[in-house]
Amino acid sequence: MATSIKTRYVETAQDGIVHHSSFIVYLEMARIDFFSSFGIDINDLEKKKIFNPVVSIAVRYKKPLFSLENIVVKVFCTDVSRVKFSLGYKILRDEKCVAEGSSAHCFVNASFSPIPIPPSILESLKKSYEENQPK
Amino acid sequence: MATSIKTRYVETAQDGIVHHSSFIVYLEMARIDFFSSFGIDINDLEKKKIFNPVVSIAVRYKKPLFSLENIVVKVFCTDVSRVKFSLGYKILRDEKCVAEGSSAHCFVNASFSPIPIPPSILESLKKSYEENQPK
Amino acid sequence: MATSIKTRYVETAQDGIVHHSSFIVYLEMARIDFFSSFGIDINDLEKKKIFNPVVSIAVRYKKPLFSLENIVVKVFCTDVSRVKFSLGYKILRDEKCVAEGSSAHCFVNASFSPIPIPPSILESLKKSYEENQPK
Amino acid sequence: MATSIKTRYVETAQDGIVHHSSFIVYLEMARIDFFSSFGIDINDLEKKKIFNPVVSIAVRYKKPLFSLENIVVKVFCTDVSRVKFSLGYKILRDEKCVAEGSSAHCFVNASFSPIPIPPSILESLKKSYEENQPK
Repeated sequence: MATSIKTRYVETAQDGIVHHSSFIVYLEMARIDFFSSFGIDINDLEKKKIFNPVVSIAVRYKKPLFSLENIVVKVFCTDVSRVKFSLGYKILRDEKCVAEGSSAHCFVNASFSPIPIPPSILESLKKSYEENQPK
Repeated sequence: MATSIKTRYVETAQDGIVHHSSFIVYLEMARIDFFSSFGIDINDLEKKKIFNPVVSIAVRYKKPLFSLENIVVKVFCTDVSRVKFSLGYKILRDEKCVAEGSSAHCFVNASFSPIPIPPSILESLKKSYEENQPK
Repeated sequence: MATSIKTRYVETAQDGIVHHSSFIVYLEMARIDFFSSFGIDINDLEKKKIFNPVVSIAVRYKKPLFSLENIVVKVFCTDVSRVKFSLGYKILRDEKCVAEGSSAHCFVNASFSPIPIPPSILESLKKSYEENQPK
Repeated sequence: MATSIKTRYVETAQDGIVHHSSFIVYLEMARIDFFSSFGIDINDLEKKKIFNPVVSIAVRYKKPLFSLENIVVKVFCTDVSRVKFSLGYKILRDEKCVAEGSSAHCFVNASFSPIPIPPSILESLKKSYEENQPK
Protein backbone atom coordinates (compact mmCIF):
# COMPACT_ATOMS: atom_id res chain seq x y z
CA MET A 1 0.00 0.00 0.00
CA ALA A 2 1.43 3.39 -1.00
CA THR A 3 0.12 6.95 -0.72
CA SER A 4 1.38 9.82 -2.88
CA ILE A 5 1.65 13.22 -1.20
CA LYS A 6 3.00 16.56 -2.34
CA THR A 7 4.57 18.53 0.51
CA ARG A 8 2.93 21.90 1.11
CA TYR A 9 4.51 25.33 1.34
CA VAL A 10 2.74 25.93 4.67
CA GLU A 11 4.37 22.79 6.09
CA THR A 12 7.85 24.34 5.94
CA ALA A 13 9.27 26.38 8.82
CA GLN A 14 11.82 29.18 8.94
CA ASP A 15 14.70 26.69 8.66
CA GLY A 16 13.54 26.07 5.08
CA ILE A 17 12.49 22.43 5.46
CA VAL A 18 9.23 20.63 6.08
CA HIS A 19 8.52 20.69 9.83
CA HIS A 20 8.97 17.32 11.51
CA SER A 21 5.38 17.38 12.83
CA SER A 22 4.04 17.19 9.26
CA PHE A 23 5.59 13.75 8.84
CA ILE A 24 3.14 12.56 11.52
CA VAL A 25 0.29 13.81 9.33
CA TYR A 26 1.75 12.03 6.28
CA LEU A 27 1.77 8.76 8.25
CA GLU A 28 -1.88 9.26 9.15
CA MET A 29 -2.83 9.96 5.53
CA ALA A 30 -1.10 6.73 4.49
CA ARG A 31 -2.76 4.84 7.36
CA ILE A 32 -6.22 6.03 6.30
CA ASP A 33 -5.49 4.92 2.71
CA PHE A 34 -4.19 1.59 4.05
CA PHE A 35 -7.51 1.07 5.87
CA SER A 36 -9.37 2.20 2.79
CA SER A 37 -7.48 -0.40 0.71
CA PHE A 38 -9.18 -3.14 2.67
CA GLY A 39 -12.59 -1.51 2.52
CA ILE A 40 -12.59 0.44 5.80
CA ASP A 41 -13.73 4.06 5.65
CA ILE A 42 -12.51 5.86 8.77
CA ASN A 43 -15.41 8.33 8.55
CA ASP A 44 -17.96 5.48 8.54
CA LEU A 45 -16.19 3.86 11.46
CA GLU A 46 -16.33 7.07 13.50
CA LYS A 47 -20.02 7.57 12.65
CA LYS A 48 -20.56 4.16 14.31
CA LYS A 49 -18.62 5.58 17.32
CA ILE A 50 -15.65 3.28 16.74
CA PHE A 51 -12.39 5.20 17.11
CA ASN A 52 -8.87 4.15 16.37
CA PRO A 53 -6.52 6.23 18.53
CA VAL A 54 -2.76 6.35 18.30
CA VAL A 55 -1.21 4.67 21.35
CA SER A 56 2.34 5.50 20.36
CA ILE A 57 4.23 6.88 17.42
CA ALA A 58 7.88 7.12 16.43
CA VAL A 59 9.66 8.66 13.46
CA ARG A 60 13.28 8.51 12.40
CA TYR A 61 14.21 11.41 10.09
CA LYS A 62 16.97 10.64 7.60
CA LYS A 63 16.84 13.44 5.03
CA PRO A 64 15.12 16.85 5.03
CA LEU A 65 12.06 17.33 2.86
CA PHE A 66 11.49 20.59 1.02
CA SER A 67 8.42 22.48 -0.12
CA LEU A 68 6.42 21.05 -3.05
CA GLU A 69 8.24 17.73 -3.21
CA ASN A 70 6.53 14.52 -4.24
CA ILE A 71 6.78 11.73 -1.72
CA VAL A 72 5.33 8.27 -1.33
CA VAL A 73 4.42 6.72 2.03
CA LYS A 74 4.39 2.92 2.33
CA VAL A 75 2.52 1.23 5.17
CA PHE A 76 2.61 -2.34 6.44
CA CYS A 77 1.36 -4.18 9.49
CA THR A 78 4.20 -5.19 11.84
CA ASP A 79 2.18 -6.71 14.66
CA VAL A 80 -1.42 -7.57 15.45
CA SER A 81 -3.28 -9.09 18.38
CA ARG A 82 -6.98 -9.29 19.28
CA VAL A 83 -6.94 -5.72 20.67
CA LYS A 84 -3.86 -3.93 19.36
CA PHE A 85 -1.89 -3.53 16.16
CA SER A 86 1.30 -1.88 15.01
CA LEU A 87 2.18 -0.37 11.67
CA GLY A 88 5.47 0.39 9.99
CA TYR A 89 6.01 3.22 7.49
CA LYS A 90 8.59 4.28 4.95
CA ILE A 91 8.55 7.76 3.44
CA LEU A 92 10.25 7.76 0.04
CA ARG A 93 11.40 10.52 -2.32
CA ASP A 94 12.67 9.40 -5.70
CA GLU A 95 12.47 5.84 -4.34
CA LYS A 96 14.95 6.67 -1.55
CA CYS A 97 13.88 6.46 2.07
CA VAL A 98 13.83 9.88 3.77
CA ALA A 99 12.10 8.78 6.99
CA GLU A 100 10.85 5.67 8.75
CA GLY A 101 8.05 5.45 11.24
CA SER A 102 6.00 3.16 13.42
CA SER A 103 2.74 3.49 15.28
CA ALA A 104 0.67 1.38 17.67
CA HIS A 105 -3.12 1.56 17.82
CA CYS A 106 -6.13 0.12 19.56
CA PHE A 107 -9.85 0.58 19.03
CA VAL A 108 -12.08 2.37 21.53
CA ASN A 109 -15.76 3.22 21.86
CA ALA A 110 -17.29 6.65 22.42
CA SER A 111 -16.24 6.60 26.10
CA PHE A 112 -12.63 5.79 25.16
CA SER A 113 -12.87 2.22 26.51
CA PRO A 114 -10.85 -0.32 24.52
CA ILE A 115 -12.82 -2.72 22.34
CA PRO A 116 -11.62 -5.73 20.30
CA ILE A 117 -10.45 -4.98 16.77
CA PRO A 118 -13.56 -5.32 14.54
CA PRO A 119 -13.38 -8.80 12.85
CA SER A 120 -13.13 -7.62 9.22
CA ILE A 121 -10.31 -5.22 10.12
CA LEU A 122 -8.50 -7.88 12.17
CA GLU A 123 -8.62 -10.21 9.16
CA SER A 124 -7.10 -7.60 6.85
CA LEU A 125 -4.41 -6.60 9.34
CA LYS A 126 -3.41 -10.25 9.77
CA LYS A 127 -3.18 -10.63 6.00
CA SER A 128 -0.99 -7.54 5.71
CA TYR A 129 1.15 -8.80 8.59
CA GLU A 130 1.67 -12.17 6.92
CA GLU A 131 2.49 -10.64 3.53
CA ASN A 132 5.09 -8.56 5.30
CA GLN A 133 6.94 -11.51 6.87
CA PRO A 134 10.25 -12.67 5.37
CA LYS A 135 9.75 -15.88 3.35
CA MET B 1 -11.33 41.92 25.44
CA ALA B 2 -7.72 40.99 24.64
CA THR B 3 -5.95 37.65 24.19
CA SER B 4 -2.17 37.22 24.55
CA ILE B 5 -0.50 34.77 22.19
CA LYS B 6 3.11 33.84 21.55
CA THR B 7 3.75 32.94 17.92
CA ARG B 8 5.07 29.42 17.43
CA TYR B 9 8.14 28.25 15.55
CA VAL B 10 6.00 25.75 13.62
CA GLU B 11 3.80 28.61 12.40
CA THR B 12 6.59 30.12 10.32
CA ALA B 13 7.22 29.06 6.71
CA GLN B 14 10.35 29.03 4.57
CA ASP B 15 10.05 32.77 3.92
CA GLY B 16 10.94 33.26 7.60
CA ILE B 17 7.66 34.79 8.77
CA VAL B 18 4.52 33.47 10.42
CA HIS B 19 2.29 31.98 7.72
CA HIS B 20 -0.78 34.08 6.97
CA SER B 21 -3.10 31.15 7.76
CA SER B 22 -2.00 31.23 11.42
CA PHE B 23 -3.51 34.68 11.82
CA ILE B 24 -6.91 33.03 11.23
CA VAL B 25 -6.20 30.74 14.17
CA TYR B 26 -5.20 33.72 16.35
CA LEU B 27 -8.55 35.37 15.56
CA GLU B 28 -10.37 32.21 16.61
CA MET B 29 -8.43 31.99 19.87
CA ALA B 30 -9.38 35.60 20.63
CA ARG B 31 -13.00 34.92 19.64
CA ILE B 32 -13.21 31.95 22.01
CA ASP B 33 -11.78 34.11 24.83
CA PHE B 34 -14.26 36.85 23.91
CA PHE B 35 -17.13 34.37 24.30
CA SER B 36 -15.59 33.10 27.48
CA SER B 37 -15.46 36.67 28.85
CA PHE B 38 -19.25 36.74 28.85
CA GLY B 39 -19.59 33.28 30.33
CA ILE B 40 -19.93 31.18 27.17
CA ASP B 41 -17.80 28.05 26.97
CA ILE B 42 -17.57 26.96 23.32
CA ASN B 43 -17.05 23.33 24.39
CA ASP B 44 -20.27 23.37 26.45
CA LEU B 45 -22.13 24.95 23.55
CA GLU B 46 -20.96 22.24 21.15
CA LYS B 47 -21.89 19.51 23.65
CA LYS B 48 -25.44 20.92 23.43
CA LYS B 49 -25.11 20.61 19.62
CA ILE B 50 -25.04 24.36 19.12
CA PHE B 51 -22.34 25.35 16.63
CA ASN B 52 -21.05 28.74 15.68
CA PRO B 53 -19.60 28.50 12.16
CA VAL B 54 -17.64 31.17 10.35
CA VAL B 55 -19.70 32.59 7.50
CA SER B 56 -16.92 34.83 6.23
CA ILE B 57 -13.52 36.03 7.29
CA ALA B 58 -11.13 38.72 6.13
CA VAL B 59 -7.66 39.72 7.23
CA ARG B 60 -5.52 42.70 6.23
CA TYR B 61 -1.81 42.03 6.89
CA LYS B 62 0.23 45.14 7.69
CA LYS B 63 3.50 43.87 9.13
CA PRO B 64 5.13 40.43 9.15
CA LEU B 65 5.17 38.46 12.40
CA PHE B 66 8.20 36.40 13.38
CA SER B 67 8.70 33.27 15.43
CA LEU B 68 8.29 33.52 19.22
CA GLU B 69 6.84 37.03 19.24
CA ASN B 70 4.29 38.16 21.79
CA ILE B 71 1.11 39.52 20.30
CA VAL B 72 -2.25 40.66 21.62
CA VAL B 73 -5.52 40.16 19.75
CA LYS B 74 -8.40 42.56 20.48
CA VAL B 75 -11.98 41.60 19.58
CA PHE B 76 -15.13 43.68 19.42
CA CYS B 77 -18.63 43.23 18.03
CA THR B 78 -19.23 45.31 14.90
CA ASP B 79 -22.75 44.14 14.04
CA VAL B 80 -25.45 41.92 15.51
CA SER B 81 -28.95 40.86 14.48
CA ARG B 82 -31.28 38.11 15.73
CA VAL B 83 -29.43 35.45 13.67
CA LYS B 84 -26.04 36.83 12.67
CA PHE B 85 -23.16 38.78 14.15
CA SER B 86 -19.88 40.28 12.99
CA LEU B 87 -16.66 40.75 14.88
CA GLY B 88 -13.68 43.03 14.31
CA TYR B 89 -10.12 42.20 15.37
CA LYS B 90 -6.83 43.99 15.81
CA ILE B 91 -3.58 42.07 16.18
CA LEU B 92 -1.01 44.14 18.06
CA ARG B 93 2.72 43.77 18.68
CA ASP B 94 4.27 46.26 21.07
CA GLU B 95 0.94 48.09 20.95
CA LYS B 96 1.23 48.61 17.18
CA CYS B 97 -1.31 47.08 14.84
CA VAL B 98 0.22 44.35 12.61
CA ALA B 99 -3.05 43.02 11.18
CA GLU B 100 -6.77 43.73 11.20
CA GLY B 101 -9.54 41.24 10.68
CA SER B 102 -13.26 40.73 10.55
CA SER B 103 -15.53 37.71 10.66
CA ALA B 104 -19.24 37.01 10.34
CA HIS B 105 -20.97 34.16 12.16
CA CYS B 106 -24.30 32.51 12.68
CA PHE B 107 -25.45 29.68 14.91
CA VAL B 108 -26.53 26.29 13.60
CA ASN B 109 -27.82 23.03 15.03
CA ALA B 110 -26.38 19.56 14.49
CA SER B 111 -27.83 19.40 10.97
CA PHE B 112 -26.24 22.75 10.06
CA SER B 113 -29.59 24.57 9.98
CA PRO B 114 -29.43 28.17 11.19
CA ILE B 115 -30.92 28.87 14.62
CA PRO B 116 -31.43 32.22 16.39
CA ILE B 117 -28.51 33.47 18.49
CA PRO B 118 -29.04 32.02 22.02
CA PRO B 119 -30.56 34.88 24.16
CA SER B 120 -27.70 35.19 26.69
CA ILE B 121 -25.14 35.42 23.88
CA LEU B 122 -27.27 37.93 21.95
CA GLU B 123 -27.41 40.13 25.05
CA SER B 124 -23.64 40.10 25.46
CA LEU B 125 -22.96 40.73 21.77
CA LYS B 126 -25.34 43.71 21.83
CA LYS B 127 -23.53 45.08 24.87
CA SER B 128 -20.14 44.69 23.18
CA TYR B 129 -21.55 46.32 20.04
CA GLU B 130 -22.83 49.32 22.00
CA GLU B 131 -19.60 49.76 23.94
CA ASN B 132 -17.82 49.81 20.62
CA GLN B 133 -19.88 52.64 19.13
CA PRO B 134 -18.38 56.14 18.89
CA LYS B 135 -19.86 58.41 21.56
CA MET C 1 -6.37 26.93 -13.68
CA ALA C 2 -7.67 24.32 -11.21
CA THR C 3 -6.05 22.45 -8.34
CA SER C 4 -7.40 19.15 -6.97
CA ILE C 5 -7.13 18.62 -3.22
CA LYS C 6 -8.37 15.92 -0.87
CA THR C 7 -9.31 17.28 2.55
CA ARG C 8 -7.33 15.73 5.40
CA TYR C 9 -8.58 14.12 8.59
CA VAL C 10 -6.27 16.36 10.64
CA GLU C 11 -7.93 19.42 9.09
CA THR C 12 -11.25 18.71 10.80
CA ALA C 13 -12.04 20.03 14.27
CA GLN C 14 -14.31 18.76 17.03
CA ASP C 15 -17.39 20.16 15.27
CA GLY C 16 -16.85 17.48 12.61
CA ILE C 17 -16.05 19.77 9.68
CA VAL C 18 -12.88 21.04 8.05
CA HIS C 19 -11.60 24.02 10.05
CA HIS C 20 -12.07 27.35 8.27
CA SER C 21 -8.32 28.10 8.50
CA SER C 22 -7.57 25.16 6.17
CA PHE C 23 -9.43 26.89 3.35
CA ILE C 24 -6.70 29.56 3.48
CA VAL C 25 -4.13 26.83 2.87
CA TYR C 26 -6.19 25.45 -0.04
CA LEU C 27 -6.17 28.92 -1.65
CA GLU C 28 -2.39 29.07 -1.31
CA MET C 29 -1.95 25.63 -2.87
CA ALA C 30 -4.07 26.75 -5.82
CA ARG C 31 -2.15 30.04 -6.04
CA ILE C 32 1.19 28.20 -6.18
CA ASP C 33 -0.17 25.94 -8.96
CA PHE C 34 -1.50 29.03 -10.76
CA PHE C 35 1.99 30.56 -10.68
CA SER C 36 3.46 27.24 -11.74
CA SER C 37 1.04 27.16 -14.73
CA PHE C 38 2.82 30.18 -16.17
CA GLY C 39 6.27 28.87 -15.42
CA ILE C 40 6.95 30.46 -12.03
CA ASP C 41 8.33 28.19 -9.31
CA ILE C 42 7.74 29.84 -5.93
CA ASN C 43 10.77 28.03 -4.46
CA ASP C 44 13.04 29.43 -7.19
CA LEU C 45 11.61 32.88 -6.65
CA GLU C 46 12.32 32.73 -2.91
CA LYS C 47 15.85 31.46 -3.54
CA LYS C 48 16.35 34.70 -5.48
CA LYS C 49 15.03 36.54 -2.38
CA ILE C 50 11.84 37.59 -4.13
CA PHE C 51 8.85 37.07 -1.86
CA ASN C 52 5.17 37.33 -2.60
CA PRO C 53 3.36 38.10 0.66
CA VAL C 54 -0.38 38.15 1.21
CA VAL C 55 -1.56 41.73 1.73
CA SER C 56 -5.15 40.74 2.42
CA ILE C 57 -7.34 37.69 2.22
CA ALA C 58 -11.06 37.05 2.43
CA VAL C 59 -13.14 33.88 2.33
CA ARG C 60 -16.89 33.40 2.18
CA TYR C 61 -17.91 29.93 3.44
CA LYS C 62 -21.08 28.55 1.85
CA LYS C 63 -21.12 24.85 2.70
CA PRO C 64 -19.16 22.79 5.25
CA LEU C 65 -16.43 20.48 3.99
CA PHE C 66 -15.89 17.08 5.56
CA SER C 67 -12.88 14.83 6.02
CA LEU C 68 -11.47 13.07 2.93
CA GLU C 69 -13.56 14.97 0.40
CA ASN C 70 -12.29 15.80 -3.06
CA ILE C 71 -12.38 19.47 -3.92
CA VAL C 72 -11.18 21.63 -6.78
CA VAL C 73 -9.89 25.19 -6.34
CA LYS C 74 -10.13 27.57 -9.31
CA VAL C 75 -7.98 30.71 -9.41
CA PHE C 76 -8.15 33.77 -11.64
CA CYS C 77 -6.62 37.22 -11.66
CA THR C 78 -9.14 39.94 -10.77
CA ASP C 79 -6.85 42.96 -10.77
CA VAL C 80 -3.25 43.79 -11.59
CA SER C 81 -1.10 46.91 -11.52
CA ARG C 82 2.66 47.46 -11.74
CA VAL C 83 3.14 46.59 -8.03
CA LYS C 84 0.04 44.76 -6.81
CA PHE C 85 -2.34 42.05 -7.97
CA SER C 86 -5.53 40.44 -6.76
CA LEU C 87 -6.78 36.91 -7.22
CA GLY C 88 -10.22 35.37 -7.00
CA TYR C 89 -10.90 31.75 -5.99
CA LYS C 90 -13.75 29.29 -6.10
CA ILE C 91 -13.65 26.07 -4.08
CA LEU C 92 -15.84 23.42 -5.71
CA ARG C 93 -17.11 20.03 -4.55
CA ASP C 94 -18.98 17.99 -7.16
CA GLU C 95 -18.86 21.11 -9.34
CA LYS C 96 -20.80 23.12 -6.76
CA CYS C 97 -19.23 26.13 -5.10
CA VAL C 98 -18.64 25.59 -1.35
CA ALA C 99 -16.53 28.71 -0.75
CA GLU C 100 -15.29 31.80 -2.53
CA GLY C 101 -12.15 33.75 -1.77
CA SER C 102 -10.00 36.66 -2.75
CA SER C 103 -6.48 37.74 -1.97
CA ALA C 104 -4.24 40.73 -2.70
CA HIS C 105 -0.47 40.44 -3.05
CA CYS C 106 2.63 42.44 -3.72
CA PHE C 107 6.26 41.46 -4.20
CA VAL C 108 8.98 42.32 -1.69
CA ASN C 109 12.73 41.81 -1.39
CA ALA C 110 14.60 40.21 1.52
CA SER C 111 14.11 43.32 3.65
CA PHE C 112 10.35 43.32 3.02
CA SER C 113 10.50 46.43 0.80
CA PRO C 114 7.99 46.40 -2.08
CA ILE C 115 9.43 45.79 -5.54
CA PRO C 116 7.69 45.92 -8.95
CA ILE C 117 6.06 42.69 -10.11
CA PRO C 118 8.75 40.81 -12.09
CA PRO C 119 8.03 41.41 -15.84
CA SER C 120 7.33 37.77 -16.84
CA ILE C 121 4.88 37.38 -13.95
CA LEU C 122 3.20 40.70 -14.72
CA GLU C 123 2.67 39.54 -18.32
CA SER C 124 1.03 36.30 -17.21
CA LEU C 125 -1.16 37.99 -14.61
CA LYS C 126 -2.38 40.49 -17.22
CA LYS C 127 -3.21 37.63 -19.57
CA SER C 128 -5.16 35.82 -16.85
CA TYR C 129 -6.93 39.07 -15.98
CA GLU C 130 -7.97 39.65 -19.61
CA GLU C 131 -9.17 36.07 -20.08
CA ASN C 132 -11.30 36.54 -17.02
CA GLN C 133 -13.12 39.65 -18.28
CA PRO C 134 -16.70 39.34 -19.55
CA LYS C 135 -16.81 39.46 -23.36
CA MET D 1 12.02 23.23 33.04
CA ALA D 2 8.28 23.39 32.38
CA THR D 3 6.19 25.06 29.68
CA SER D 4 2.50 25.90 30.11
CA ILE D 5 0.30 25.48 27.04
CA LYS D 6 -3.44 25.78 26.47
CA THR D 7 -4.69 23.34 23.83
CA ARG D 8 -6.35 25.05 20.87
CA TYR D 9 -9.75 24.41 19.35
CA VAL D 10 -8.14 24.07 15.91
CA GLU D 11 -5.93 21.27 17.25
CA THR D 12 -8.88 18.93 17.76
CA ALA D 13 -10.12 16.62 15.02
CA GLN D 14 -13.53 15.14 14.28
CA ASP D 15 -13.05 12.47 16.96
CA GLY D 16 -13.33 15.29 19.52
CA ILE D 17 -9.80 15.11 20.91
CA VAL D 18 -6.55 16.95 20.27
CA HIS D 19 -4.88 15.40 17.22
CA HIS D 20 -1.80 13.35 18.06
CA SER D 21 0.37 15.47 15.74
CA SER D 22 -0.15 18.52 17.97
CA PHE D 23 1.68 16.78 20.80
CA ILE D 24 4.80 16.95 18.60
CA VAL D 25 4.36 20.72 18.45
CA TYR D 26 3.95 20.90 22.24
CA LEU D 27 7.26 19.06 22.67
CA GLU D 28 8.95 21.56 20.38
CA MET D 29 7.53 24.52 22.27
CA ALA D 30 8.87 23.03 25.50
CA ARG D 31 12.22 22.30 23.84
CA ILE D 32 12.55 25.91 22.69
CA ASP D 33 11.75 27.12 26.23
CA PHE D 34 14.27 24.62 27.60
CA PHE D 35 16.96 26.11 25.33
CA SER D 36 15.82 29.57 26.28
CA SER D 37 16.20 28.67 29.99
CA PHE D 38 19.94 28.33 29.46
CA GLY D 39 20.20 31.46 27.37
CA ILE D 40 19.90 30.03 23.87
CA ASP D 41 17.51 31.82 21.51
CA ILE D 42 16.64 29.46 18.65
CA ASN D 43 16.00 32.43 16.33
CA ASP D 44 19.49 33.84 17.00
CA LEU D 45 21.01 30.41 16.42
CA GLU D 46 19.27 30.06 13.06
CA LYS D 47 20.34 33.59 12.05
CA LYS D 48 23.91 32.31 12.54
CA LYS D 49 22.97 29.40 10.24
CA ILE D 50 23.15 26.87 13.06
CA PHE D 51 20.21 24.49 12.92
CA ASN D 52 19.04 21.89 15.37
CA PRO D 53 17.07 19.26 13.46
CA VAL D 54 15.07 16.43 14.95
CA VAL D 55 16.79 13.10 14.25
CA SER D 56 14.05 11.02 15.81
CA ILE D 57 10.95 11.49 17.89
CA ALA D 58 8.65 9.21 19.83
CA VAL D 59 5.47 9.82 21.80
CA ARG D 60 3.46 7.51 24.00
CA TYR D 61 -0.16 8.72 24.39
CA LYS D 62 -1.80 7.78 27.69
CA LYS D 63 -4.90 9.94 27.95
CA PRO D 64 -6.78 12.03 25.38
CA LEU D 65 -6.49 15.81 25.56
CA PHE D 66 -9.48 18.02 24.86
CA SER D 67 -9.91 21.51 23.49
CA LEU D 68 -8.91 24.46 25.71
CA GLU D 69 -7.21 22.37 28.39
CA ASN D 70 -4.22 23.62 30.33
CA ILE D 71 -1.19 21.38 30.15
CA VAL D 72 2.40 21.54 31.30
CA VAL D 73 5.30 20.02 29.37
CA LYS D 74 8.44 19.05 31.29
CA VAL D 75 11.73 18.56 29.46
CA PHE D 76 15.00 17.00 30.59
CA CYS D 77 18.19 15.85 28.93
CA THR D 78 18.49 12.05 28.83
CA ASP D 79 21.71 11.72 26.87
CA VAL D 80 24.42 13.95 25.44
CA SER D 81 27.63 13.44 23.47
CA ARG D 82 29.88 15.81 21.54
CA VAL D 83 27.55 15.76 18.51
CA LYS D 84 24.16 14.45 19.59
CA PHE D 85 21.71 14.81 22.46
CA SER D 86 18.44 13.27 23.55
CA LEU D 87 15.58 14.81 25.47
CA GLY D 88 12.76 13.29 27.49
CA TYR D 89 9.33 14.92 27.92
CA LYS D 90 6.30 14.54 30.14
CA ILE D 91 3.00 16.19 29.26
CA LEU D 92 0.93 16.76 32.39
CA ARG D 93 -2.69 17.79 32.99
CA ASP D 94 -3.66 18.46 36.60
CA GLU D 95 -0.24 17.06 37.52
CA LYS D 96 -1.06 13.69 35.92
CA CYS D 97 0.97 12.44 32.99
CA VAL D 98 -1.10 12.26 29.77
CA ALA D 99 1.80 11.57 27.39
CA GLU D 100 5.51 10.88 27.40
CA GLY D 101 7.97 11.65 24.65
CA SER D 102 11.57 11.54 23.60
CA SER D 103 13.59 13.14 20.84
CA ALA D 104 17.14 12.98 19.51
CA HIS D 105 18.87 15.95 17.89
CA CYS D 106 22.10 17.04 16.33
CA PHE D 107 23.35 20.39 15.06
CA VAL D 108 23.92 21.12 11.38
CA ASN D 109 25.15 24.04 9.30
CA ALA D 110 23.37 25.68 6.37
CA SER D 111 24.26 22.75 4.07
CA PHE D 112 22.81 20.24 6.57
CA SER D 113 26.26 18.89 7.52
CA PRO D 114 26.57 17.85 11.18
CA ILE D 115 28.62 20.14 13.41
CA PRO D 116 29.68 19.69 17.05
CA ILE D 117 27.21 20.93 19.67
CA PRO D 118 28.15 24.59 20.35
CA PRO D 119 30.19 24.63 23.64
CA SER D 120 27.78 26.76 25.72
CA ILE D 121 24.87 24.52 24.76
CA LEU D 122 26.86 21.36 25.42
CA GLU D 123 27.65 22.63 28.91
CA SER D 124 24.00 23.32 29.69
CA LEU D 125 22.82 19.99 28.29
CA LYS D 126 25.39 18.14 30.41
CA LYS D 127 24.20 20.02 33.49
CA SER D 128 20.58 19.12 32.75
CA TYR D 129 21.62 15.52 32.15
CA GLU D 130 23.41 15.33 35.49
CA GLU D 131 20.56 16.92 37.42
CA ASN D 132 18.30 14.35 35.88
CA GLN D 133 20.33 11.31 37.09
CA PRO D 134 19.08 9.28 40.05
CA LYS D 135 21.09 10.09 43.19
